[in-house]
Amino acid sequence: VSSDVQQALVVLCHPRPGSFNHAIAARAAEALRRRAGTVLERDLYAEGFDPLLTPAELATTRTGGGAADPQVRAQQEFLAASHSLVVVHPNWWGKPPAMMAGWMDRVLAPGVAYRLLSADAAPEPLLRLRHLVVLNTSDTPVSREVEVFGDPLEQIWGRCVAEYLPDALYLRHTFGPVGTSSADERRRWLGEVDDLVAGLP
Amino acid sequence: VSSDVQQALVVLCHPRPGSFNHAIAARAAEALRRRAGTVLERDLYAEGFDPLLTPAELATTRTGGGAADPQVRAQQEFLAASHSLVVVHPNWWGKPPAMMAGWMDRVLAPGVAYRLLSADAAPEPLLRLRHLVVLNTSDTPVSREVEVFGDPLEQIWGRCVAEYLPDALYLRHTFGPVGTSSADERRRWLGEVDDLVAGLP
Repeated sequence: VSSDVQQALVVLCHPRPGSFNHAIAARAAEALRRRAGTVLERDLYAEGFDPLLTPAELATTRTGGGAADPQVRAQQEFLAASHSLVVVHPNWWGKPPAMMAGWMDRVLAPGVAYRLLSADAAPEPLLRLRHLVVLNTSDTPVSREVEVFGDPLEQIWGRCVAEYLPDALYLRHTFGPVGTSSADERRRWLGEVDDLVAGLP
Repeated sequence: VSSDVQQALVVLCHPRPGSFNHAIAARAAEALRRRAGTVLERDLYAEGFDPLLTPAELATTRTGGGAADPQVRAQQEFLAASHSLVVVHPNWWGKPPAMMAGWMDRVLAPGVAYRLLSADAAPEPLLRLRHLVVLNTSDTPVSREVEVFGDPLEQIWGRCVAEYLPDALYLRHTFGPVGTSSADERRRWLGEVDDLVAGLP
């Protein structure tokens, strides 16, 4: 294993500084560092990430040219050399918040995440990720999310995205309901984050 | 039926002016006007809609206070008096683009779309919509979207959102693959938009 594949990218999306999502991301990053890797943490709200794909960027990325925006390009380059991607965000309407959705739209672009050889052919995956870890929070109990709402985040990350990562182990965990949780519960959940990262192959 | 419930809101999200999504939205709006209603069209990219929920707005909406931003508030008020909501957007990673995701995060807020009576109770729906029509485009064939990717947009709109609209008929149609479609196919698809809107009860 060469040194560059020990890189991990942790992408966090929650509007409120000090949120439980922030605690989860910090814990995951710490646990990744204990695995002796280089860990890049991006707090999308804190850095003022622009989530909107422009018409010009849409045209460029369709030809696989990569993003002109240095903020996006830096994350694409780091991701392309990364071993692990950890994303942390709440469940809003069964989807990622707009900020996280925009990170997906812009960073996971053609030429970076996959290559389109022709309009008809199945895309060729490009990333060399070994781990995709998705950590969500919710105020809906998990059983209700699955039975009533169909848990679309599971399909978005575990199928739509993971399908493009043929060599990656996909793990997802939803913590919640957060709104009514005790400090003890949240401490236990952060321990589960440690265990999950420590247990990665 | 009082006059105010004949209102329809058409929300369009595509970065490129003149896109096929634009044609679909315009066709749906025309067909709605033929039903003698008041139709408001919002082209989110054209109006420069800000998709990001801020920490301050998150705090306000959690208490059901409604949005302070006049751009959001205007759409919330129109939607609250509307009979039909039509959304038009492409499928990006099995989810709406960031711009559309942000419209959902900000406009479909507590106090507008639903009311939380307590942290534990099921939310009480507030909108009086009779129709939720979702028109998507995709470059993935529908069968592959359903079988390989699980079609999470169906759960997002048809379950996560529609669950909060107990009196609404939910209809969704995906047009595509758009990238390789002929002018004839696209004309036929626009005819299907006419028929779909004309057939609403």
